Amino acid sequence: MTFRPRLLTPGPVELAPDVLLALAARQLHHRSPEGRAAFKRARLLLANLFGVDLNAGWETLILTMSGTGAMEAGLTAVLRPGDQVLALANGKFGQRWQSMARRIGLEVRELNAPWGEALDPRALEEALRAVPGVKAVVFTHSETSTGTLNDAQVLAETARRVDPGVLVVTDAVTSLAVAELRPVEWGLDVIASGSQKGVGGPPGLGFLALSPRALNAARLLPAPQAFTLDIRRELSAQPRGETAFTPAINLVAALIPSLERLAETGLENVWRERSAMTTAFLAAAVALGAASFSMRPSPACAAIEPPVPATGAMLAKAMKARGAHVQRGQDEIEDRITRVSFMGYFDRYDVLAVVGILEDALTDLGVALKPGAGLIAAWDKLRAPGSTPNPEG
Amino acid sequence: MTFRPRLLTPGPVELAPDVLLALAARQLHHRSPEGRAAFKRARLLLANLFGVDLNAGWETLILTMSGTGAMEAGLTAVLRPGDQVLALANGKFGQRWQSMARRIGLEVRELNAPWGEALDPRALEEALRAVPGVKAVVFTHSETSTGTLNDAQVLAETARRVDPGVLVVTDAVTSLAVAELRPVEWGLDVIASGSQKGVGGPPGLGFLALSPRALNAARLLPAPQAFTLDIRRELSAQPRGETAFTPAINLVAALIPSLERLAETGLENVWRERSAMTTAFLAAAVALGAASFSMRPSPACAAIEPPVPATGAMLAKAMKARGAHVQRGQDEIEDRITRVSFMGYFDRYDVLAVVGILEDALTDLGVALKPGAGLIAAWDKLRAPGSTPNPEG
Repeated sequence: MTFRPRLLTPGPVELAPDVLLALAARQLHHRSPEGRAAFKRARLLLANLFGVDLNAGWETLILTMSGTGAMEAGLTAVLRPGDQVLALANGKFGQRWQSMARRIGLEVRELNAPWGEALDPRALEEALRAVPGVKAVVFTHSETSTGTLNDAQVLAETARRVDPGVLVVTDAVTSLAVAELRPVEWGLDVIASGSQKGVGGPPGLGFLALSPRALNAARLLPAPQAFTLDIRRELSAQPRGETAFTPAINLVAALIPSLERLAETGLENVWRERSAMTTAFLAAAVALGAASFSMRPSPACAAIEPPVPATGAMLAKAMKARGAHVQRGQDEIEDRITRVSFMGYFDRYDVLAVVGILEDALTDLGVALKPGAGLIAAWDKLRAPGSTPNPEG
Repeated sequence: MTFRPRLLTPGPVELAPDVLLALAARQLHHRSPEGRAAFKRARLLLANLFGVDLNAGWETLILTMSGTGAMEAGLTAVLRPGDQVLALANGKFGQRWQSMARRIGLEVRELNAPWGEALDPRALEEALRAVPGVKAVVFTHSETSTGTLNDAQVLAETARRVDPGVLVVTDAVTSLAVAELRPVEWGLDVIASGSQKGVGGPPGLGFLALSPRALNAARLLPAPQAFTLDIRRELSAQPRGETAFTPAINLVAALIPSLERLAETGLENVWRERSAMTTAFLAAAVALGAASFSMRPSPACAAIEPPVPATGAMLAKAMKARGAHVQRGQDEIEDRITRVSFMGYFDRYDVLAVVGILEDALTDLGVALKPGAGLIAAWDKLRAPGSTPNPEG
């Protein structure tokens, strides 16, 4: 091994040794005192990570399905076929929610922004005023396909101002435990996420946080035409550490060490550090001749346009040759960008290593650059006032 | 530790060390050569375990969901709301499929048998003749709630004889890699299973095997009102080792050592051995004054009615006190039976250990019995002609 492998994709992510160790533990039975205790512990830690209070009418669910499944379960919980939704998109995931909403029978109004730009709250306001009867607004907080962080706070506040009764459904798959996310203060109602991103677990679990308003809306609806995606049995079971169907209990137990570490670090420290890391990497990329594809970069994923003659796909391949598993773009920007994520078990110093890989990879591709320029740019950002963590915690 | 723990529930099951080791491996990315190779390997081994030929028009899917989710995806693949199905039940799981079928909008005709008895093929024939227009027959192969093995072969052949076009949908959750199961020869069309039973993996994955007839039926239908449960994208993605949504790839990779061991042992040897183990345990229980609850016992799960003054729940508790995690019954037979399963990483000699635990537990509960009677009865069965495996394999 000349280069050690680094998983720098926007999920799955590099797992911590204690998470791997938890995965290797003897099989738990989910309906045993130990199984229930693990489930309840994970649920409580997850609620804290979402920043919601289970004693104040919020609920958090751990579902044995993908994050996409959790989004579908969330939409199914609060909407019924024929309901009108306004679904925003500025990338592939936003488009997925539009398709999904149409498929499950919702009346979908689309509001699209160019890839790389953030969703526009003024356009949301206009659209909501123009179309009466919208029951829910659906958007992606961190759009991983373009490395863009949408302003969930302003979007939610705008929607709520125009229509206080509208439900706000948010894909927080790559923002939970990565970017600032305050469901209570911002007025989010249904927030979906997954285990293999900022939470630092293996893939296979979807998460939902539901506001009291969302839970009330769900209670008033007839049963959905879905069985395993129907969360009503989960809502009564999970507070007791039970689930309606057999859960991926090994994955649930493996979340605990990572969730405990995040709790110990503190959410604001986590957000600041993830942001500092991605900002530093973007600065390094720019210093090496690349450009940020996104106008409003997400801390979950740096999307960079490499300098000529490199392309996004070429750079991803050249970085992989040095052990760094990063990703090219998707769909129309497949070859235009390279995406690098530090959501996994990485700290700020790992960014320097990856900047080294980036410089070497660009050099391999024939890009002329000033040696060390990326490192200095990254280091400047990491040492900027307000971005340096206190080692004492 | 006076007693070591033994997970003897009908799923999840005790995992082999190499499965645990695979779970502890570094995070794979599902969209990498290694991830795709692991997925394809698991898919191929799983098809062999189902006994179906992927080159003869059959398909096998690995889904990130519970076995219940796989059943819902299977029903959703071949049926649409308003379609008439005949759903058989002789226990809790059969009842679940009836509820699920109703929920997803199917027109459900029920055919019920008493708990503990097997489903009656003659009753199936009568019901099918009496109700024209049934598109699918749905039944549970191994009914875990009562420890009963339904005769899937005769049920399927009966259905097919009455109506050659009817689809046969089978819950094989606890029969795959436990009881004889021959989808091709018997004429099954949709067969659902899960990772945490005979396959010897952790929970969190559902499996489907689909016959050419089922796949043809699915192709002729309009898109279902479901997104993540819609298997059409999986059907095109999985042969390439891809999935429509992020899979629980760690769980998929962990299946491989167990699937390889099953392949090496040979399916018929696996079936004979699982059957010999459960038969031996039931004989021991009878020798110790208990009775078999089921009229047609399943090799997946021995359901025993303990002798007075013990009850099913008391015996489960007393065995747990000696490390053996077994289960009481469910619903109306909750306190009547104790369920013991050898689906996990156990061989025939482990049955002797569990018989020892059973005798001690019954003694703890004040049952008068002849010391060693259970061991001798079990040993007699294990050494019966035709039931002893050749150590040379």
